[in-house]
Order: sequence, then structure tokens, then C-alpha cells
Amino acid sequence: MRIEIICTGDEVLTGKTVNTNFSHMSQKLEDVGLAVRWGTIVGDDRETLLEAFRLASARADAVIVNGGLGPTVDDLSQEIAARAAGVDLVLDAGWLERMEDFFQRRGRVMPPNNRKQAMLPSIAERLDNPVGTACGFALDIGKARFFFTPGVPREMRRMVEEQVIPRLLARSGLQAVIRLKRFHSYGLGESHVDALLAGIEMLASEGGVKLGFRAHYPQLETKLAVRGADAADIERKLAPVEAELRRRLGNFIIAEDDETLEGVVLDALRRCQGSLAVVETFTGGQIAARLAPLPGAEAIFRRGIVSRDLAEIAAALKLPALDQPSPSTAEAVAEAARRAAGASHGLAVLIELDEGADRIEFGGTIHVAIATERGAVSRRARMLGGRDWVRLGAAELALDALRRHLEGLPIAERIDFEKT
Amino acid sequence: MRIEIICTGDEVLTGKTVNTNFSHMSQKLEDVGLAVRWGTIVGDDRETLLEAFRLASARADAVIVNGGLGPTVDDLSQEIAARAAGVDLVLDAGWLERMEDFFQRRGRVMPPNNRKQAMLPSIAERLDNPVGTACGFALDIGKARFFFTPGVPREMRRMVEEQVIPRLLARSGLQAVIRLKRFHSYGLGESHVDALLAGIEMLASEGGVKLGFRAHYPQLETKLAVRGADAADIERKLAPVEAELRRRLGNFIIAEDDETLEGVVLDALRRCQGSLAVVETFTGGQIAARLAPLPGAEAIFRRGIVSRDLAEIAAALKLPALDQPSPSTAEAVAEAARRAAGASHGLAVLIELDEGADRIEFGGTIHVAIATERGAVSRRARMLGGRDWVRLGAAELALDALRRHLEGLPIAERIDFEKT
Repeated sequence: MRIEIICTGDEVLTGKTVNTNFSHMSQKLEDVGLAVRWGTIVGDDRETLLEAFRLASARADAVIVNGGLGPTVDDLSQEIAARAAGVDLVLDAGWLERMEDFFQRRGRVMPPNNRKQAMLPSIAERLDNPVGTACGFALDIGKARFFFTPGVPREMRRMVEEQVIPRLLARSGLQAVIRLKRFHSYGLGESHVDALLAGIEMLASEGGVKLGFRAHYPQLETKLAVRGADAADIERKLAPVEAELRRRLGNFIIAEDDETLEGVVLDALRRCQGSLAVVETFTGGQIAARLAPLPGAEAIFRRGIVSRDLAEIAAALKLPALDQPSPSTAEAVAEAARRAAGASHGLAVLIELDEGADRIEFGGTIHVAIATERGAVSRRARMLGGRDWVRLGAAELALDALRRHLEGLPIAERIDFEKT
Repeated sequence: MRIEIICTGDEVLTGKTVNTNFSHMSQKLEDVGLAVRWGTIVGDDRETLLEAFRLASARADAVIVNGGLGPTVDDLSQEIAARAAGVDLVLDAGWLERMEDFFQRRGRVMPPNNRKQAMLPSIAERLDNPVGTACGFALDIGKARFFFTPGVPREMRRMVEEQVIPRLLARSGLQAVIRLKRFHSYGLGESHVDALLAGIEMLASEGGVKLGFRAHYPQLETKLAVRGADAADIERKLAPVEAELRRRLGNFIIAEDDETLEGVVLDALRRCQGSLAVVETFTGGQIAARLAPLPGAEAIFRRGIVSRDLAEIAAALKLPALDQPSPSTAEAVAEAARRAAGASHGLAVLIELDEGADRIEFGGTIHVAIATERGAVSRRARMLGGRDWVRLGAAELALDALRRHLEGLPIAERIDFEKT
């Protein structure tokens, strides 16, 4: 089945808005085994929209159109859909009622121009939007089935997931039960993980498991998309592949599915009734900014100290003057921070930065130390890649070292991103 | 002149990579008065690329193609460009030499497959790439001029700026000297600023000044694009508009052009030989993470303390037990932080959060205090919009209050984002 996406709207066409809707839709389709073949971006202009619909309907079996369902005069999707299909716009009384109710529940009266959002092409099948006033719909234009979705990301995401993808899967004849199992790892590059996992899909003897990756430094997401007759069939296919993947990636898996590394760290601290004090230098508050805002963190993330100056850190923690960053300095800082905050765990991240201007070979030596009442441990890694890159890597290395420590794993396993 | 953009590559088509290249190119063109009329996204597939080139060449006067200039087998742009133009690929000996030199200077030998990057359509005009091995080029396909650019953002940005835009301006007949003056503001919404600045373009009596906006909460960027015969002409047109814009937006302008709010704050502290201590609660390190990493911050950003718990902050600063957040509590915390770090300025951001789960009406009352040896001042604002929204707003409000204080402006001017 050939699928296209048309993104509409002057904001997207002029680049005022980065087109994250396109990548979201395309990834979601990819995840269930459907491929997008062509994307089109056009503005709020009648002739251009008509031409885009006409071209796509001649090439594709299914087309997702995003945007243009709002109440203002430059929202043209219903009008042009009707024109392209050669039908009239008619009032969907049911949707009008839904909208009036939507406003009423918020203590407001529906403005008259919202009525336009209930005018749908006469042959349209309504696609529900439980979180907004833009009504989605589907209809045939030429040989292609068109699915019209709202431009507001939250509304689009829900409609694509609940309304569009099930219909596309039904039309494609693909098995409709899909599960996407995701693993987040840190420390191994994409090509390394690809090599480590070679042949793993074959462990599902009847097939149905597809391996994929998405790298967003410093993390890598490894995805197993499983297709089956029902949940039990999927579980049977996934189990051997998942077990082997866990074996091969082992300690490098930092989180799964919707989990985050910082969430996993916080949960591990919560489980051991622990609490945390953090000292950061070059990472400048990035570690605190990932942990402290999490729900429930107020009871666990006791205190963060940020300074670029070791003398300042010594003063804040009532330590004697500190030497250059080193494993023992980092351990002393972590322990002092832990004691000062009365926390179960102290985490310190110190860096010896290279001299000179920022450049691609710019690097630093990172010292991560973790202190508990049973003593302190540390790990050292040299990273290159420019200031921002090293900063991202240092924050990730530190959070991952804490995760490993909390999970009883070795904290100093060599990673692909460190240089000797 | 009708311009189109074609983005190529499976990474972009499948959504693995968010298409920031498209929005960057489109904005850059918009900034000089050129408009993109149509965007196409296709994968690394010969027939699809050919069809995309063919369609665009029939519609447009100029087409920018992005991606597909790399050394691997799925980089197809040169090959399909030659096919679409009906010409052969020939070796560009000059570019081959450039590439060999590029590798040599990095102490490496050029791999044989990079030779492919020097094979250009015989009629191609070379577009220089000073920062990579992907050679850009231009040629006619049908009635349209095609400009081929690399997919690597850093290389694309430079080539579009230095090679493509000047050629497009020359072809368009638009005056080629352009200046883009940008103002960043905080506290006024886009429609409010739009109304405040109504008619401002008319102050350039001969025209040539275009006003535009780009909102990225919590900041708003206001742009003046000026077109003229030469630099002096541009200066003459811009001066009255710029002066009036400064008058109307006044204290709400936080930075200009490539400046950032945090950079402006750091510079102001540097100028008064000042230094800073920061205490954050709900903002969780976001303020530190914006200030501390800046070049030169190590001497100015003395110390940041992050905790979600007021008792913890009191303990860290050796203060008696603190009540609920209030103006006086915030002032006491800012002063204690300033003293503890021996800094000239102390900044404290405390929040009283609403109860209950996160939701769109979720809000908080933010207390920002600034202490110096001459005493402390504070400002209070209630903001709504969900946890992340309030957190972003609180960090911005605090940095802006510090900027205002350092610049001798009132820190408590009412903003559009606060609710009574």
C-alpha cells in the first residue's frame, strides 16, 4: 500500500514551525510496518492545496493530510477536500453539538466562526477528536483514501494513533495486532549495537519481528516491532528475541519503553528509600534539571550544587582547598555533599577541560564519583567532540554511573564514546 | 519567482530525523524576501527522485534539493540530476583534489568511495562547500534552476547562505543587499506586539522594511528585514523604524540579533565586575543550566543551589526554618546565597505550586528576589499552563528580572503571561 503525507499551513511552509508532525506520523506508521513514500508541504492556498490533493490521489492508495481544520478563514482543508472529491460541504449536526458542549464545559460560549469546523464533505466518514474542536474525517479522492487530521500536535497524535493507523492497517491487509518494544541504551554506538544484534530477528522462528534504531546522542533507542494474530501470538514471538537482546546489550540498557534514565534513577532511589545530593561543575545544572522536576523528586532529590569553580565547591561544602579534579577529589566532594544534605547517595561530576577554543576535537576528562555511607567509588572517562557534546556526555555518564551503582552493576564498563 | 524545496533521504522520509533543514532553508529565504511555494520529501529511490525533480521543474523557477551528495550507494542526487537534465556525470578534477587535501590535512587517506562525490553532471556549476566533502552544484532541469545542497546541517547552512541565496536574489531581480535586524522580547504575546508595532514599517518613507515574528515561548523574536541599494541605504531606511520599535517595546527587549538573555545577563554582570549566586526550587536547575555553561561564566556564576524543599535550602544556607514562599522569604534566601558565595548578586526563585495533578490550568505563584549589598528587591507573578509551562516561565521571569535589575529598569512591570 502506497501512503503519502501532505502537511498544510503557511507556518510550516515558511519554516516558522519546524515540521515535527511529519516525522511523528511517519515514525508511527513505520513502527507498525507501514511506509510513507512521499511527503508534500504546501501553504494555505486554494489552488496549491487542490493540486497537491490531485497529485497525491493519482499516486497513492492512502493519504494523510495534516492541518487546515481550524475555525479561521485560512483553514481550507474541508473546502478543498469537498472540491477535490466533487461533493458539497454539509453541516455535521452531531459535531456541532459536540463543539458547543466542549465550550460550555469550559464556561465559554462557542464563537460563531467555529461552526465552520462542523462543515464536512457530504461523503466524509468522521474521525473522532476527543481533545479538540477540529473534526477529523476520511473520504475517497480518486483512487486514494484521504485522512484529514488536525495540525495541533496533541490532537493529531491521538487521532493518528486511534483512528488513522487502525484504518490503514485494515486496508493494508497487514496483521493488525502490533506491539512495539523499545530499549534505551547508553554507551554503545548505533553501528556497534547493530552488529551486536545481528540475526536476532531470526529467533522468532515464524518471523514477524522487525529490528530498528533511532539515535539521539547520547542515547540510542532499539526497537522491536512485533506483528501477530493476537497478544499471545505476539508474546510468543517477542519472548526469545527480547531475552537475547537483553543478554547481548546487558548492562547498557538504561531504560525501556516510556521510561527515562533519570526516571529509572529516581525509582531506584525510591525503592531503597534513598535520597540524593548532586555536585556539578561543567555540566552546569543539567543533571539537576533532569532529576529535580520529576514528580516525587522533592522528597528524593535533596540538594544540587552547581559551580564551575572547585574553590567555590570546597567553600560550599566546607572542604579544605581542592586540587585538580581527580578520582579522589571527586569522591571527597561526593561524600561531603552527601553528608551536608543528609542524603543516602552523593553524586559528583568534575571535569578537567582541554585548553583553548571550542572545536570538534575539544575534549575533557570526566570524573564521576558516587558516595554512600559504605564508601565512595569513581570512574574516569575522556571524551571529545566539542564543549556541548562533552557536556551532554558527562551528564549522561554520571546519571548512568548512578543507575549502575543502584542496580549493583559495574560502574566503569568501557563505552564507545570514551577515548583512551 | 516560484521556489520549491525537495528534501531527500530515507532518514527524513521515515521521520527518524526531524526535518529542521527544511524550516531553516525556508526561514532564510523568507528573511530575504523570497518565498517557498512547495516542499517535497522523498526517500533514496531513483524513480521517486526523478519524478520529484520532473514535477518541480515543471512548476518552479528555482528548486533547492537537500541531501544525497554523500559517498555511499544510497546517495543519488548527482546521478538523478544528470539523468533529469539528460547529461553525463563527469569527474570534477578540482573537487577531487580538494577532497584529497581535506583528508590529508586530517592525517587520513581518502577512501575510494569518496571519489563519487566529485562526479558532477557535465553542465553543473559548482557550489563551494568549505566545510565538508559534499560538493554542491547548480544546473537547469527543464525551465527551472536546481541547486543541490548537502544534508549535513552545518554544510547546508553555509552553502545556502553563501552560495544559493545570492544566486536566487540575482535571478529574482530583488535588491541584493539585505539586512535582518532581530529583537528578542519577553513578557508580551505575539498578537500584543503585532498591535503595538502597527504601522511601524511605514516609517521607512520609501518602503523596503518588512516586519515579521517568530514565537518560541517564553520568548518572541521580532524581525525587521531591510532591503536596499547598499549598506548606507539600508541604514537610512532601518534607523527610524528601529528607533520607534525600541521606543514601543522598551524594557521588554531582552536581547538583540544573536544575543541570548543569559548572555546579556552575564555580560551585564561582567561589566559591573559582579558575580552571582542562584537558588532554584521548582525550576530545578534550568537557570543554572543556561548561565553556567557560557564561556567566561566560571568567574561570574559562583554557585547555584537546587532543591525542591525549602527546609533543604534553609539548611544549605544556614538560615532558620523558612515559611511558605513569600517575597520576604525569597529576599532572605537571595541575600543568604549571595553572602555564602561572596557574590555581588544573589537570585532566588521560589514557587508556591497549585495542588493536584498536572493539567492545562495548573499553575503556581512565583517569587523572584534579587539581593545585592544595597538590599533586596522582589517580584511576584502567578502563571498558569501546566507544570512544564510554568517552569519555563519561572526561569525566564527570574533571568529577566535580573537583567532588568542590572540595567536599572523596573523589575515588576506587568507581563501578558501573568494572571491576577
